[in-house]
Amino acid sequence: MKLPYVPSSDLLNRSRFCIILVNPENQENIGLVARAMKNTGFSSLRLAGLKGLQPEAFRTAVHSEDLLRKASFFSTLSQAVADLNLVLASTVRQRKAFKVLTIDEAVEKIKAFPAETKIGLVFGNERTGLSDLELRQANFVYFIPQVSRQPSYNLAAAVLVILYTLFRQSTSELIPQSAPPIPRKKQEDCLKIILKKLEKKGFMHETNREHVTNLLYDLFGRLALSERDRRFLLAVFNKGLDRE
Amino acid sequence: MKLPYVPSSDLLNRSRFCIILVNPENQENIGLVARAMKNTGFSSLRLAGLKGLQPEAFRTAVHSEDLLRKASFFSTLSQAVADLNLVLASTVRQRKAFKVLTIDEAVEKIKAFPAETKIGLVFGNERTGLSDLELRQANFVYFIPQVSRQPSYNLAAAVLVILYTLFRQSTSELIPQSAPPIPRKKQEDCLKIILKKLEKKGFMHETNREHVTNLLYDLFGRLALSERDRRFLLAVFNKGLDRE
Repeated sequence: MKLPYVPSSDLLNRSRFCIILVNPENQENIGLVARAMKNTGFSSLRLAGLKGLQPEAFRTAVHSEDLLRKASFFSTLSQAVADLNLVLASTVRQRKAFKVLTIDEAVEKIKAFPAETKIGLVFGNERTGLSDLELRQANFVYFIPQVSRQPSYNLAAAVLVILYTLFRQSTSELIPQSAPPIPRKKQEDCLKIILKKLEKKGFMHETNREHVTNLLYDLFGRLALSERDRRFLLAVFNKGLDRE
Repeated sequence: MKLPYVPSSDLLNRSRFCIILVNPENQENIGLVARAMKNTGFSSLRLAGLKGLQPEAFRTAVHSEDLLRKASFFSTLSQAVADLNLVLASTVRQRKAFKVLTIDEAVEKIKAFPAETKIGLVFGNERTGLSDLELRQANFVYFIPQVSRQPSYNLAAAVLVILYTLFRQSTSELIPQSAPPIPRKKQEDCLKIILKKLEKKGFMHETNREHVTNLLYDLFGRLALSERDRRFLLAVFNKGLDRE
């Protein structure tokens, strides 16, 4: 079975998204953010309030160092979002001055804007989050659901949750299923061969036939046999039982 | 607005889940796993192949140290899952011997079993993942979607993705929306007061009335005014405009 890797080109057009970190303190978090971006097909990273990156960021950015190398640096969040059309900021705290959306509402907002809209997703400092002044740079503020007030999500975890949510939105129809079960007739033919074998071996007899047949139909029904399963089972019952 | 923190007791009954890490190498990842568990309401952590934890694990387990303190240690995965009813393992690699489910199929499996089913979610070593021998301990193997083969998700990120998915499944109906917009009649009354003000200030006149009215209806319609919005706008137009 081929695993369902999903190429970057997709319905949501992830290339128009920027992930913007404001004053991140922990370089390892920046690397983990880059890795989460790579996992989910986002590629543009902006850093506000930082001038450069340290080796610790590259250490955690496994196979994602290229995203760090082409990251952009800005003195302020205001400069980092200047060319974007739509800015969304995440918060874990109650905000008196701002209406806070759920993450699902935030995703619906994003989907409601035209495909050429350049979008920034903003995340604050690990300890302090985003200030009210910084939130003013956002069109919408949203909340990532969590069980209790403490702890908040780790910075890279918060980025992953929204990116994974967007990634799944953009690709949910594209993820292929594994091979379908064989036609029901073929499933039953296989089952009948097995029943015949069991009969022949004396496992099944007048008093338990109905019961055993029901059990086997139930068991193999739930398996929803694939062609590989069918071959394997027939081999087991043809050779395995005969060898006894 | 109250943020939608969601208590631990829920439809999926998260207390029956164990998160099981097999031979994790990086202690900081273990701490991040504990934090992701705390964020999403899971509390039982098992470690296979480890005898104890180092300070680095506690450093990243912000406000989640209690989960580390009550973690259980096992020599082998087989021992770690012995008392569980249903075991699911995550993989990022193609597996010849095992049918691999999508993450959504894995969640459906979990939901299909009765509420008292004790469930283990197993994650392999950061570099090697789970061996075929280890996968044999699982009832089901599932795949967390990603864009390309490399990089895989960071260990704590993989745990977060499945836990967040389960958390959202269990609570999607429970997350309250913020206050609904005020009744449409009240929205329009507010709008009419503003139109009257603009008329009085000479901003609106015979030639632009229709156009400006349309623009205002569109703008305030999209805002879907809350009671707070309404009060704020009326204050702005009553006092702000009069002060000119």
